[in-house]
Amino acid sequence: MEQDLTETQAPELDAPSDVLSPEDYVAALVKTAKGAAGRLATLSTAVKNQALLAMADGLEAQEAELLAANEKDLEPFDSTPERKAVADRLRLTAERVRDMAAGIRDIARLPDPLGETPKMWTRPNGMQVGRMRVPIGVIGIIYEARPNVTADSAALCLKSGNVCLLRGGSEALHSNTAIAKVLSDSAEKAGVPSGAITFVDRPEREIVQLLLKQDRWIDLIIPRGGESLMKTIAEHATIPVLKHDQGVCHTYVDVDADPLVAEQICLNAKVQRPSTCNAMETLLVHQTIARTWLPHLVGRLTAAKVEVRGCPKTIQLCPEVKPAAEDDFGREFLDLILAVKVVKNMDEALEHIATFGSQHTEAIVTKDYARAMRFLREVDAGAVLVNASTRLNDGYQFGLGAEIGISTSRLHARGPMGLEELTCSKFVVLGSGQIRE
Amino acid sequence: MEQDLTETQAPELDAPSDVLSPEDYVAALVKTAKGAAGRLATLSTAVKNQALLAMADGLEAQEAELLAANEKDLEPFDSTPERKAVADRLRLTAERVRDMAAGIRDIARLPDPLGETPKMWTRPNGMQVGRMRVPIGVIGIIYEARPNVTADSAALCLKSGNVCLLRGGSEALHSNTAIAKVLSDSAEKAGVPSGAITFVDRPEREIVQLLLKQDRWIDLIIPRGGESLMKTIAEHATIPVLKHDQGVCHTYVDVDADPLVAEQICLNAKVQRPSTCNAMETLLVHQTIARTWLPHLVGRLTAAKVEVRGCPKTIQLCPEVKPAAEDDFGREFLDLILAVKVVKNMDEALEHIATFGSQHTEAIVTKDYARAMRFLREVDAGAVLVNASTRLNDGYQFGLGAEIGISTSRLHARGPMGLEELTCSKFVVLGSGQIRE
Repeated sequence: MEQDLTETQAPELDAPSDVLSPEDYVAALVKTAKGAAGRLATLSTAVKNQALLAMADGLEAQEAELLAANEKDLEPFDSTPERKAVADRLRLTAERVRDMAAGIRDIARLPDPLGETPKMWTRPNGMQVGRMRVPIGVIGIIYEARPNVTADSAALCLKSGNVCLLRGGSEALHSNTAIAKVLSDSAEKAGVPSGAITFVDRPEREIVQLLLKQDRWIDLIIPRGGESLMKTIAEHATIPVLKHDQGVCHTYVDVDADPLVAEQICLNAKVQRPSTCNAMETLLVHQTIARTWLPHLVGRLTAAKVEVRGCPKTIQLCPEVKPAAEDDFGREFLDLILAVKVVKNMDEALEHIATFGSQHTEAIVTKDYARAMRFLREVDAGAVLVNASTRLNDGYQFGLGAEIGISTSRLHARGPMGLEELTCSKFVVLGSGQIRE
Repeated sequence: MEQDLTETQAPELDAPSDVLSPEDYVAALVKTAKGAAGRLATLSTAVKNQALLAMADGLEAQEAELLAANEKDLEPFDSTPERKAVADRLRLTAERVRDMAAGIRDIARLPDPLGETPKMWTRPNGMQVGRMRVPIGVIGIIYEARPNVTADSAALCLKSGNVCLLRGGSEALHSNTAIAKVLSDSAEKAGVPSGAITFVDRPEREIVQLLLKQDRWIDLIIPRGGESLMKTIAEHATIPVLKHDQGVCHTYVDVDADPLVAEQICLNAKVQRPSTCNAMETLLVHQTIARTWLPHLVGRLTAAKVEVRGCPKTIQLCPEVKPAAEDDFGREFLDLILAVKVVKNMDEALEHIATFGSQHTEAIVTKDYARAMRFLREVDAGAVLVNASTRLNDGYQFGLGAEIGISTSRLHARGPMGLEELTCSKFVVLGSGQIRE
């Protein structure tokens, strides 16, 4: 990553960056980032799209270098199964590099969200008023996931006119550094201001804590990671945060559910990709339909290698099921495990969801109109679905084009965050001499 | 205020509240507030509107009690001019009580923002997706202003389905307590859950710091007050905050401005109500128009008792003007004082605004189309106006119906905050058996 500091107060970065103190290093990074924000905000859509295509081409052209950097990250991982799982997520292949490039080209094809003014209205004094989409500014993204997050985040931020300040996990440092350098170099050659894609290329944990205090330079923090990261952020951030936190998602199968539809939705919600935040973790079944439907479903789940943990009524109906521990309800398994509870009625289901849900994704399966509408209205979550799998709560599935993740915050953006959610607004007024009376 | 605790963990509130420790007092308040949130969120518009009308009637019926409580707040204020200004802001009169009631009735007439789903779209798999407006939850409002803020805030929160937790300034404690009791009692009798309007009736400063840590129970903090309040909040809040901070607003009079329009707009922006955050604090004038126009404007400003503080070029043109100190630029005077700077061109004006503005309200006066559009696009502020007075940046003036204030945050709500800005959204999905492939 090239660092072209425009502010004279910033520490000199010609020396190798690892000789700077963490404080000076962070100060230099955030000033570089902020320095790019003004020019990036008004860059034309054409230039941004050319830069995105150049970034995609750059990744493909530098495939060998990216795979070599990735090898260095993979070295410490031997073949114990746990470490192998991490290595699998970390590993870059020619195909994964092509996928990253394809993802960036997709983002180039999406409409530019900036300048959009959904409506303007005329006031009695004749002035026209509207809200115009503008960039948020500098967005710090702190993540622990696969290296492709580096490419996705940089592309989404660039398209929405935001500077990104990327901090990846230390286990992927070589891969992320190499990817970020290709992206940043390619973007700059295409006319994007230096600093628009800024990568934190030092692994010290202290640096995250310093970043979280830079409210003068960073406008928003988006964390994507585990509990310990979320805790650090809650303790230290003086910057607004949009959390991407855990999902404890329920499906409620109503007395009036179509049995086949309910079966397909429940299997999909649990099995299709159990390690994701929108997978079902607890199934709630109305007691009447449970008698006939639940034993059959449990058979299908077991055949799909799902470990079912049931409430006492579930076990009465399906004696082969393991009893659920108290804390299995409200737990994010992220695995082929499902807690099942038989409920007396919809009130009990709603109360269970309000108590144990994480307000991420909640679904009902029913043929009854009134109960469908009541569930939609009363359940408080980022996404509430009728007769659909919780796994569909996703930016691509919802038609947002691409997503930077699923926000579990309430304000500004809740649920999948696409390009629109990476903008804020300003009021614009077209007047002809109006004054306040 | 009645406190009807539904959670058994909450400390007992039958004893007089001042015997509780601040920690227990705050814990009881926030649980009462949170306990009301679920039922309030789904209350019908008809019940909410009846409650608002009952609140307005209640204030008028209890006028004598409110004025008596207000007298207790006024007692410590003698007749020194400074203290008299505070007393003037604090004072309730029969007319001000009627104004509060009228404001609440206006809010009853506004459309209910909840449930609004601006659009739904159909995905290739046939499911329909949209965003529905829902309440934020529990909103803590911390303010230092006139007692009418208590009534405005309670009414706006109730209409938008949010529980409000109100903490006013200690100088208005008796008045605010009396107002909040009338509002809360009237609302409860009309069917609003107890706790929906929760007032902090103890004055200790420590209580604000405790409130700012209640992220489990409070969803949003809206502070309205001076620098020391904002500092406390920045240091202690673990809850999302929408700031209502200072406005350092500029008007740029372009070379192609209509002289008469520019004069009317500048006089209005400075003089109409100089103590507000959207009043003009600095005037930027293009050097060419300045020669003829500025001396005339300075004469008009001086006649209106404005103290003008000018840059050296301003003083060349208007020798009677005082020189501006360096820190007069970027300063929020909130008074009949104006800093004036003559600029070479629009670039210099934009740079000055980017450096010294507080991103609150910025205006240009010009007849030139291209410069008007460039100003709209490039200036980063909550409201950017062409040929209109900065004083028009206001929820009522913009047609939002009513406002809880002008947000200076970037995320969620920027500029005037009406009922819509007091909501968040959830995705709703109407499916017919869709699963993820």
